[in-house]
Amino acid sequence: MSTRPLDGTIVLDLTTALAGPYATLLLAGLGARVIKIENPLTGGDSSRGNSPYVTREGLRLRRLDEVDMSLSMMLRGRGKESLTINLRTDEGRALLKELAAHADVLVENYSAGVTERLGIDHPRLRETNPRLVYTSISGFGAQGLPEGGGKAMDTIIQALSGLMMTAGQPDDPPVRLGVPVGDLVAPLFAVIGTLAAVLQARTTGHGQHVDVSMLGALTSLVAAEPFDALESVGIPLRTGPLVPRLAPFGTFESKNGWIALCAPTDALAASVLRAVGREDLLTEDRFATRDARVANADALHAIIGDWIRSRTNEEALSGLVAGGVPAAPVRSTAEAVRDPLLLTRGEVVPLSHPEYGEVADVYGSGIPFRLSGSDTTLDRPAPALSQDTERVLKEFLDYDARTVDELRRSGVI
Amino acid sequence: MSTRPLDGTIVLDLTTALAGPYATLLLAGLGARVIKIENPLTGGDSSRGNSPYVTREGLRLRRLDEVDMSLSMMLRGRGKESLTINLRTDEGRALLKELAAHADVLVENYSAGVTERLGIDHPRLRETNPRLVYTSISGFGAQGLPEGGGKAMDTIIQALSGLMMTAGQPDDPPVRLGVPVGDLVAPLFAVIGTLAAVLQARTTGHGQHVDVSMLGALTSLVAAEPFDALESVGIPLRTGPLVPRLAPFGTFESKNGWIALCAPTDALAASVLRAVGREDLLTEDRFATRDARVANADALHAIIGDWIRSRTNEEALSGLVAGGVPAAPVRSTAEAVRDPLLLTRGEVVPLSHPEYGEVADVYGSGIPFRLSGSDTTLDRPAPALSQDTERVLKEFLDYDARTVDELRRSGVI
Repeated sequence: MSTRPLDGTIVLDLTTALAGPYATLLLAGLGARVIKIENPLTGGDSSRGNSPYVTREGLRLRRLDEVDMSLSMMLRGRGKESLTINLRTDEGRALLKELAAHADVLVENYSAGVTERLGIDHPRLRETNPRLVYTSISGFGAQGLPEGGGKAMDTIIQALSGLMMTAGQPDDPPVRLGVPVGDLVAPLFAVIGTLAAVLQARTTGHGQHVDVSMLGALTSLVAAEPFDALESVGIPLRTGPLVPRLAPFGTFESKNGWIALCAPTDALAASVLRAVGREDLLTEDRFATRDARVANADALHAIIGDWIRSRTNEEALSGLVAGGVPAAPVRSTAEAVRDPLLLTRGEVVPLSHPEYGEVADVYGSGIPFRLSGSDTTLDRPAPALSQDTERVLKEFLDYDARTVDELRRSGVI
Repeated sequence: MSTRPLDGTIVLDLTTALAGPYATLLLAGLGARVIKIENPLTGGDSSRGNSPYVTREGLRLRRLDEVDMSLSMMLRGRGKESLTINLRTDEGRALLKELAAHADVLVENYSAGVTERLGIDHPRLRETNPRLVYTSISGFGAQGLPEGGGKAMDTIIQALSGLMMTAGQPDDPPVRLGVPVGDLVAPLFAVIGTLAAVLQARTTGHGQHVDVSMLGALTSLVAAEPFDALESVGIPLRTGPLVPRLAPFGTFESKNGWIALCAPTDALAASVLRAVGREDLLTEDRFATRDARVANADALHAIIGDWIRSRTNEEALSGLVAGGVPAAPVRSTAEAVRDPLLLTRGEVVPLSHPEYGEVADVYGSGIPFRLSGSDTTLDRPAPALSQDTERVLKEFLDYDARTVDELRRSGVI
């Protein structure tokens, strides 16, 4: 087995649902040993109870057997070990602290303030392990909810970030994106912050608290383009499928689907006109310069739209792409995740059930970068609840079988 | 000055436009010294020529003065130094190789294959610097364009990733998101890969190639939820502003805006009904259980929608939030980036021009995580083209003023 960037790094994973588990999934892909700590009373991570489930007979809305596993857990639990601890007990919290003394990183996504109340926040755990990197993902940051603000969920974060008003037309309702970017962007920044803090800890010997807000993370991406400043100088944001100021530019309906096309420069616009058989327009005043094309965007888009509408995606694209125009089909998620190139690169991977293997035709996120000197495959399926409890407690704390048994009987693990 | 995670790390930045420069911006925020290498013949990074510009008089579509700077560069150039090298000359490439011997990281976002043709790809630079981490961001990955595929631009990546089909209603056109997530997600993974490779290099002494595809990065996020599997068991994806299967859930129009509301559980749904003054419905068969609410989602959404429509955002939210319902206003990007909480946390920051300061009311991305033991402020404004050339060449390669002058006259720098 090749070396991995986080080989030998121990991560305690106190996360549930999506944002936190996605962060620790990426750390597992980088080679960290991720020990997922789940609540024994509630059935563990809430994702274990998300319908649908992978059963021996494929995907079903309800479990047919105890070993059936939710698709969410199959996806997010890969490469992790499962240990149960009841953190509402004094013994459970003491156990967590003992484990934290052996860890390099802890990741949690409780609501702000919960780890303090439980007595397992960064200041407390740092006492026994000063080099611990302690990463928190919460809705609005470690300081808690804003005045008059409600709880965070993906849709709430999308609404507050401004993202919903960057799609559609001016009079359209806000556009809720199905991809839960409110949940998914924060963990990317959490991993960046965690890796940075691990680097620093290796130099200084001191860990630190990495505090990530879902709203801050997504809004910082929205702020990567200064949309309101652009609008103030007449560059509108909500222009729907077409973008007049870059014409020809946007998505167009064909006989059997939609294609996207981007030709904001003179050279690309000329290629488009040649591809649609209208070389004659190249020298026409209405379309000869970028300013002219922007002024006559509707006419230009109508000409191109008519040509595409009478062709299939394949017919339209072969001409455009041959001419060097950036153009592509608009794909469904089902098509996108089965793209052979992405499967080869491991950016998307087929998911397998720990017992049934690849029984359902389901795909999930891989690690979307390739390291020439290292492997980032997530090939260990998600764990059953508590499957590693005994082994982990033996290995880290030298607990014998009797002690583990007592802890289990008394509801600590 | 506090220690930063990447203090002492030298990054050579061969990127232009958005995806690459955003990656190196984040590295600068982590404390790396980022030396931006720009083409002296073309006026440097294409972002320098993106209208609008910040002028002494505020934001303008055209430059009024030579020191006026594009908003794009003001945002993406922060914390970087600027050095010009003409990589089309033999001397320019030799110069880059000499600098690379002193660097820890190189980031580039040329089209796949370009660095090989220039003779500055990873295998070449590794010869003189085996510990160099070499990060490439391209449309589809280092192997180049897929068969029959066109070039990558943000909209093309959005189309191919499946993302566009995760918003809107079933018969709506694909939804192009204004936030350029095709450009912005890849750099997040590039930074994760780079930091991981830096960690590994510090252990092994060996750098590696980090190969990130824009399509792979965005599609891996889309694949974090198995949408097509969910649809196969009757959980539809494109449901527009409302989500019947989680009812009450979605965005609702008020007298003066829109609000988002998420109440998929019994307790939250009850809170919503109490807030809208319809406690009487709590025990009604149509709404008493989650299954019932899903079956009668239209009726439930209509009742809530009517209540919200006759109130302002503020009126509707005060009742909902007081009842513990996750609810929030749908904000414009202009409102979102001016949120005092986010400005305090540094997730969004006001932008300043190197000479004029904060003359325009413009905001940009900060580093969206807080490190308790380190500072991630990007407080050095973007550099003028080539402003650091002489100093950098003196410092790293001990070039004297005459040598620099000759290189400049011969068009190498």
